[in-house]
Amino acid sequence: MRGAVLYGPRDVRFEELEDPKIIEPTDAVIRMAATCVCGSDLWPYRGLQPINRPTPMGHEYCGFVEEVGSAVRSVKPGQFVVGSFATSDNTCPNCQYGYQSSCVRREFMTRAQAPWLRVPLADGTLVPTPGVPSTDLVPSLLTTSDVLGTGWFAADAANVKPGSTVVVVGDGAVGLLGVLSAKQMGAERIIAMSRHESRQKLAREFGATDIASERGDKGVAHIKELTTGIGADSALECVGTQESMLQAIQSTRPGGYVSYVGVPHGVELNGEQLFFTHVHLHGGPAPVRRYLPGLIALVLNGKINPGKVFDLVLPLDQVAEGYRAMDVRRAIKVLLQP
Amino acid sequence: MRGAVLYGPRDVRFEELEDPKIIEPTDAVIRMAATCVCGSDLWPYRGLQPINRPTPMGHEYCGFVEEVGSAVRSVKPGQFVVGSFATSDNTCPNCQYGYQSSCVRREFMTRAQAPWLRVPLADGTLVPTPGVPSTDLVPSLLTTSDVLGTGWFAADAANVKPGSTVVVVGDGAVGLLGVLSAKQMGAERIIAMSRHESRQKLAREFGATDIASERGDKGVAHIKELTTGIGADSALECVGTQESMLQAIQSTRPGGYVSYVGVPHGVELNGEQLFFTHVHLHGGPAPVRRYLPGLIALVLNGKINPGKVFDLVLPLDQVAEGYRAMDVRRAIKVLLQP
Repeated sequence: MRGAVLYGPRDVRFEELEDPKIIEPTDAVIRMAATCVCGSDLWPYRGLQPINRPTPMGHEYCGFVEEVGSAVRSVKPGQFVVGSFATSDNTCPNCQYGYQSSCVRREFMTRAQAPWLRVPLADGTLVPTPGVPSTDLVPSLLTTSDVLGTGWFAADAANVKPGSTVVVVGDGAVGLLGVLSAKQMGAERIIAMSRHESRQKLAREFGATDIASERGDKGVAHIKELTTGIGADSALECVGTQESMLQAIQSTRPGGYVSYVGVPHGVELNGEQLFFTHVHLHGGPAPVRRYLPGLIALVLNGKINPGKVFDLVLPLDQVAEGYRAMDVRRAIKVLLQP
Repeated sequence: MRGAVLYGPRDVRFEELEDPKIIEPTDAVIRMAATCVCGSDLWPYRGLQPINRPTPMGHEYCGFVEEVGSAVRSVKPGQFVVGSFATSDNTCPNCQYGYQSSCVRREFMTRAQAPWLRVPLADGTLVPTPGVPSTDLVPSLLTTSDVLGTGWFAADAANVKPGSTVVVVGDGAVGLLGVLSAKQMGAERIIAMSRHESRQKLAREFGATDIASERGDKGVAHIKELTTGIGADSALECVGTQESMLQAIQSTRPGGYVSYVGVPHGVELNGEQLFFTHVHLHGGPAPVRRYLPGLIALVLNGKINPGKVFDLVLPLDQVAEGYRAMDVRRAIKVLLQP
């Protein structure tokens, strides 16, 4: 088969890779229905996260089970499944507490920008849909694998409740789906920080009530203006830079909640400054597996349409063009069809 | 009157100060029943937190209302009162959310190591006891003003619940009262990190089930050993150094809760490292005012005896000796009698 391999900054190639096969008895191999490019793929693509060798890419996936190992019990060939970007046995203590992305047997998926994929710990990682979903639902189901699960975790970790006032920092796909998640959790006011018209529009469609286009001190001042001077109840940090982290923290009221869900790059928090902000802080790799059954149900029931974040669809062999489009923000998120 | 003034590193003088008086109509002046030296006083005492000028010291207090300003409604002369180390109007949005130590009108108290004290925002800061308490309860009531309130916040901010496994980093008075608080909140296992026999003994008396005397990686390894390999549900960071902060974070399981309640000195948190620990982090100046009524009731009902942290009692004019005793860890906490 052929799949996407990153060779270095802005050098994605679609090239021959070994066909995936069952290695461990707990593995499954799936045939991809759709995959995509993640905002986090752009860190190494831009050279901001070094890679040591040519690296097969992709960690968002859904599709049909092709084959399972001898120990797999909960999924079988022919089923349509979605899995998390992090594998989990779903039985270890961390999994039991709902932090499957810190499973003691966790592996971070890669190689999903390809037509077939080996998924380790299939029983604990994959969730089958009740039947074969209609094709038009595939994009939304694909989002549950990472980008929606991550946006949902952002809202959950930021303690969004009915009536909350929420700030979302970052207008990438995660931020936009953080808006959608906050709306689902009953937030009353959702302020999306965005400077791009098409993204502002989608943010509003997903439930944003206000848009703040300023950044830095002006951005914070605008948020305070909208929140009786004290800041928001919750802020979702969906970028991963020092600037966005401070934006989120400073936009939150004392006793409020800040979540951060993208791997921070170059972020250093000064203890004393953080102390006097009085915020709660929680984040990490989203435990998507915890949310998958619920999110799949919301998609299948037509309650949400997170697939709208895909504003560009390409055949898988044009994956390099997909990276380019996201790099220059010509696309919010690119879906790849095998 | 005479009170404690810090002139520079290890230079505390007991000297003539202006008598406190009502300045704002919302002020009260109280006659001190007892005051004390705080662990946080040791930062400037040791020269680790610079001071610009001779600084009157002390922020823990309880005593009798001597006089009130014309706008004060909730306390009156003759009443016994306890107040927080941070003043609050108890009506602003931050106060309403329970974060009185981030009140928009907050002032941090000082000048409490003296026989009289002016307390701004008396209505929102002071809590009267139902009658005049017996003398033997005064030390415990004094702790509610800061050190118990702070230990309680540490346990609360670390989400301690019935059945929790809790690590307490720091065996100063706040850490020890963090142990007591965790016990009151129903923690099943409380691991006190301490290397000092007398403090270990008091920790056990307050409810510690285990003592860990190692630090650093060995300390973390010991905690993991005691917690099925994954770490504690909650860690209370009661020191304020980089080492203690990392100790707390690394001792906590993914999804667990870390609180920090002493002003961090020289603490820098790396965003990426924090991200992958998956912990919740919350701290700041303890909103003591939120807890005061409940803590006063626990003391008056004889449910808790936090006054045991005072293992040295001195007349107020020997305040310098009190600082010395705490500096060299000859005393856990020093009570001062006017």
